[in-house]
Amino acid sequence: MIYFNCDYNEGGHPKILERLCETNLEQTAGYGKDDYCEKARKLIQKAMGREDADVHFLVSGTPTNVACLSHMLRRYQAVIAADSSHINVHETGMPESRGHKILEFENRNGKIELAQVEEFMQAREFEGKFEHAVMPKVVFITFPTETGTIYSKKELEELYQYCKAHELYLYIDGARLGYGLTAEGNDLSFQDVANNCDMFCIGGTKCGALLGEAVVILNDELKKDFRYTLKQGGQMLAKGRILGINFEVLFTDGLYFDICKHANEQAIRIRDTLKEKGIEFLVDSPTNQQFPIIPNSFFKATKNEFAFEIIKNVAGDKTAVRICTSWATKDENVDALIKRIEELL
Amino acid sequence: MIYFNCDYNEGGHPKILERLCETNLEQTAGYGKDDYCEKARKLIQKAMGREDADVHFLVSGTPTNVACLSHMLRRYQAVIAADSSHINVHETGMPESRGHKILEFENRNGKIELAQVEEFMQAREFEGKFEHAVMPKVVFITFPTETGTIYSKKELEELYQYCKAHELYLYIDGARLGYGLTAEGNDLSFQDVANNCDMFCIGGTKCGALLGEAVVILNDELKKDFRYTLKQGGQMLAKGRILGINFEVLFTDGLYFDICKHANEQAIRIRDTLKEKGIEFLVDSPTNQQFPIIPNSFFKATKNEFAFEIIKNVAGDKTAVRICTSWATKDENVDALIKRIEELL
Amino acid sequence: MIYFNCDYNEGGHPKILERLCETNLEQTAGYGKDDYCEKARKLIQKAMGREDADVHFLVSGTPTNVACLSHMLRRYQAVIAADSSHINVHETGMPESRGHKILEFENRNGKIELAQVEEFMQAREFEGKFEHAVMPKVVFITFPTETGTIYSKKELEELYQYCKAHELYLYIDGARLGYGLTAEGNDLSFQDVANNCDMFCIGGTKCGALLGEAVVILNDELKKDFRYTLKQGGQMLAKGRILGINFEVLFTDGLYFDICKHANEQAIRIRDTLKEKGIEFLVDSPTNQQFPIIPNSFFKATKNEFAFEIIKNVAGDKTAVRICTSWATKDENVDALIKRIEELL
Amino acid sequence: MIYFNCDYNEGGHPKILERLCETNLEQTAGYGKDDYCEKARKLIQKAMGREDADVHFLVSGTPTNVACLSHMLRRYQAVIAADSSHINVHETGMPESRGHKILEFENRNGKIELAQVEEFMQAREFEGKFEHAVMPKVVFITFPTETGTIYSKKELEELYQYCKAHELYLYIDGARLGYGLTAEGNDLSFQDVANNCDMFCIGGTKCGALLGEAVVILNDELKKDFRYTLKQGGQMLAKGRILGINFEVLFTDGLYFDICKHANEQAIRIRDTLKEKGIEFLVDSPTNQQFPIIPNSFFKATKNEFAFEIIKNVAGDKTAVRICTSWATKDENVDALIKRIEELL
Repeated sequence: MIYFNCDYNEGGHPKILERLCETNLEQTAGYGKDDYCEKARKLIQKAMGREDADVHFLVSGTPTNVACLSHMLRRYQAVIAADSSHINVHETGMPESRGHKILEFENRNGKIELAQVEEFMQAREFEGKFEHAVMPKVVFITFPTETGTIYSKKELEELYQYCKAHELYLYIDGARLGYGLTAEGNDLSFQDVANNCDMFCIGGTKCGALLGEAVVILNDELKKDFRYTLKQGGQMLAKGRILGINFEVLFTDGLYFDICKHANEQAIRIRDTLKEKGIEFLVDSPTNQQFPIIPNSFFKATKNEFAFEIIKNVAGDKTAVRICTSWATKDENVDALIKRIEELL
Repeated sequence: MIYFNCDYNEGGHPKILERLCETNLEQTAGYGKDDYCEKARKLIQKAMGREDADVHFLVSGTPTNVACLSHMLRRYQAVIAADSSHINVHETGMPESRGHKILEFENRNGKIELAQVEEFMQAREFEGKFEHAVMPKVVFITFPTETGTIYSKKELEELYQYCKAHELYLYIDGARLGYGLTAEGNDLSFQDVANNCDMFCIGGTKCGALLGEAVVILNDELKKDFRYTLKQGGQMLAKGRILGINFEVLFTDGLYFDICKHANEQAIRIRDTLKEKGIEFLVDSPTNQQFPIIPNSFFKATKNEFAFEIIKNVAGDKTAVRICTSWATKDENVDALIKRIEELL
Repeated sequence: MIYFNCDYNEGGHPKILERLCETNLEQTAGYGKDDYCEKARKLIQKAMGREDADVHFLVSGTPTNVACLSHMLRRYQAVIAADSSHINVHETGMPESRGHKILEFENRNGKIELAQVEEFMQAREFEGKFEHAVMPKVVFITFPTETGTIYSKKELEELYQYCKAHELYLYIDGARLGYGLTAEGNDLSFQDVANNCDMFCIGGTKCGALLGEAVVILNDELKKDFRYTLKQGGQMLAKGRILGINFEVLFTDGLYFDICKHANEQAIRIRDTLKEKGIEFLVDSPTNQQFPIIPNSFFKATKNEFAFEIIKNVAGDKTAVRICTSWATKDENVDALIKRIEELL
Repeated sequence: MIYFNCDYNEGGHPKILERLCETNLEQTAGYGKDDYCEKARKLIQKAMGREDADVHFLVSGTPTNVACLSHMLRRYQAVIAADSSHINVHETGMPESRGHKILEFENRNGKIELAQVEEFMQAREFEGKFEHAVMPKVVFITFPTETGTIYSKKELEELYQYCKAHELYLYIDGARLGYGLTAEGNDLSFQDVANNCDMFCIGGTKCGALLGEAVVILNDELKKDFRYTLKQGGQMLAKGRILGINFEVLFTDGLYFDICKHANEQAIRIRDTLKEKGIEFLVDSPTNQQFPIIPNSFFKATKNEFAFEIIKNVAGDKTAVRICTSWATKDENVDALIKRIEELL
């Protein structure tokens, strides 16, 4: 069975495993205060050209996003997020279980558009009921989105300008950041991301790490006491060194970006083959996640060969699925899938 | 200034004030264990023909609904509610602040339709991701809805049948229950409400009480420990007698229903006058809340005479507003409004 | 049966009931924005000599304290409170249900002493584990305490000085404030209370109101957005006028203090009679709550005459109870109790 | 610098690293549904002789305990725990941030004694205020305790019998379980632990794992829906295989117990040397954590050689510290410490 259902079917990049083994018996301080974390922090600061940024290492994706929300939001404040966002749909109500209301916006190709935020804020002023509803405080976007799409530099800059002018924070969930930054057609640099939000995270788990996420805090007023939030959020790993080592390796010599680019290329090979066959897609994605709508007969014929993630039933005899590549996807596996697409579709 | 903006501009029905004064210096047990609460409980049980029901008295509307949710939901379970529902929109995130995720359904005339619940439950089965999302456990409807509409007996019965067959609880927010049950065209009796849900509340504050709401628990598995929930929810009033007296008076000789019927009649007079003038409405409501879309010129001309609740701007020069009558609305005030409508529209 | 078990067995002071009846059919704005609230606010500001203070009206005692905690605390911050405090013991975990950890301090006669806070803060510095534990942020005291004792002016001033110097807020739960300020031996004025804390509440329910509590915010940095907290906490009554009227009446011509003084005097009469009989007390209280340790034979003999609140079993054949008087306690009822004490003890 | 401050200064047991490397590029299912987790589950079930037990793998210690509490407790229920317990003291209020009140019991040598629970439950019955306080539902103990002490088989059995008879769950925090079960004087087997509680956890992080904790559910009524709790608690690792591999290796050929025994032996060597020198201890511990009270001069002299964890200042010129050994502690490091103790004390 070849798995294309997600981008975390394998362990971590071999260089990370190697480094974990090399350093395994060293004694270090705990809770992110070791030298590996320190080194990783500096590498990330340098890569974004922001030595003033605070960088913290956390364990996993959603708890990372939720910890950041807990840090940014007072109890009566809420987060604006797309209805399709992971925090809204797929985390068993974790944000709400910590007290955070999500103001659901209908996604447009996985994204929130500035016009939607403007309209919402204007209606709020017009109604004038303020304290009778939650106070919007964070705009939460995902880059690339849950459906693989990306924001342009112009979109991000305008959104951030609006947020700054309206006492809103802008947060970017970068669980798959590397795939977005190396996508064809992307015009955002890593520096641009850092310069156009208050806080964001750099996904490790889905982008080559064995495990780990990094949180970057740009806005000074959010830096204070983040380690309290980290600890209460269950994300301050006793052996923080493990996380530090993951990010040290990923941000040495641009490994993070190289391996994500590889994944995108593999996904595009699959996409293009499907397109040639006239297959439609739920959305047009330039990154490692593709959402084609495929005849059920194809799945039936290949059910012992490939695993995909089911998204939804379409028109009775078709199913929208997610096909995912990753840093670890092998050429030969993609070849095998392409071969079967060509044979069967 | 004559207020038509809401149904809680006055105090309570004079008979309630009278009874509070009469009993004021009696000493009673606290926390709902007094004789007035006991008597009110029995009157309500009798009116619904359900002597097996548990009845509790609470202080105010939204905390009542939220306490009921806290009682019905385990931490990983969630409530299905209309996007327009009060708990979703107008309570500063109170449900979420207690840990409850709301699964927002797009309202259809203020209501949730069975077909929407079915579709959601089927998609959940098809995707098969269960523990990766919250478990739906409560269907929360409002009767009458926030836009004044009502469910038919058939709609309610079918929804409850579905819920029972799918391990879902059905909860009815009856903050304006009296207005719904006495509306023209309504075919639900008070007994029908009690027999077609697991738990519901009877609104006092908006229906003639000085203050107070009653919670009715029909489903045996929800009866245990509700007083713990009540206390933790901040809704167990030390002087519970105040609430008991409100409901004792309201449920003596059908006062509750009589005064709500009066409010509906006044609202219909206003509605019909507006309709004759060709005014459109956001929704067709048979109850005490009306949502006409009115030229701004009318508001300008009458701004020192009447107060309405602004809902939203429509087409530049019109505004949708809420016009609300109540048990306390005087004929002469409605006459005054009608006169001005006839003059100005 | 004569009830001495608590100070909320009756309704409200007759002048309040009278005023509620007089104003009942007036139409007012909702949610605390009416003229009665405004007038009550000004009366309270004047009585404390602090026209800069924000004053809000809430429904009941513990939700009031918890709303204030929610307002003062970030999620990783905690409140220092006596183990005997109401918020710690008797509210079904309401503070924790909203996310607040209570740092329990062993009470000394119901109070927290400055030395205890100093010792705790010094140990915290010495250990140096900061973010591994909650950050203490609020010192929560009760005046008078749950056991009826009071802080001296010197004690309160020193505690507040310490708090200000250590980035801690000082909050005073004044659920029975009137009884404390009118106690024999008390040297704190209402102004002193307002000048020696960041925020406090003025209890209505237990001090003559039909219902209602007032929150006073002195510290400017806590004033912002309190109405959001109020609403989310379920304490913004739709018919806020009811609360405003209660406090308008209580703070007109010093009624609040007069009626509380009366209660204290009645309690002292009972206390002195018991003392003459050699009865011991759990604690020495100058206010309306007394905690004598009484032979069980007395309760047996009078069980159809008086109700007390059981505190705990002492030495097998004695029970510590609470005897409570209130603004409504009648001379003749106290006489009846004294007579039986003299006959039986 | 040689670290004796905690038992998580190193990475994981080399056999675990080896196995992670071997399996790294295999594709597996996510979220704990892979074959490594399945195999580890079976090894643990077999080792306890309880094939009926549910076994889940989680990421880190305190979130594990808190997830278990969230699963066992309804919102109005609370957990009884020692004041010295990790969940009470050192987790930045994580239990409370999820809504759980801790009923703090004064620890006796780190433990809760049955007599304390009995006394509390009897006082609760006597007072009779039930719903006015939280309902106690879980007794939470730690084995070995935070101060290194252990419960005897008789103590555990009696406590569990009491819990079962009083509708309480018994939960054991086994963050250092291996050190307790291999301590000199311990008479509890792994099977005994499993047979005398409703739920417990097996610590990995502090006992040789790179990371990971296992939760064991014995009581059938707690098995349902635990994966929802796991996910919401942020403890369902996408690459669950990592955790499975850790526990597969630890529970193969008794590795878990062998390496913990080694740590205890090293700790006892240090303890005995200190005792010979007349050093006093905060508590008498047979496990890998020792709490001697040592003259400050010793720390001054060895500050560049050894790191300990500061507990508290004692009598001005002494400090109580924690000295911790682990599965990774080397003989030569212990020798070095002993040598200096002998020279300096």
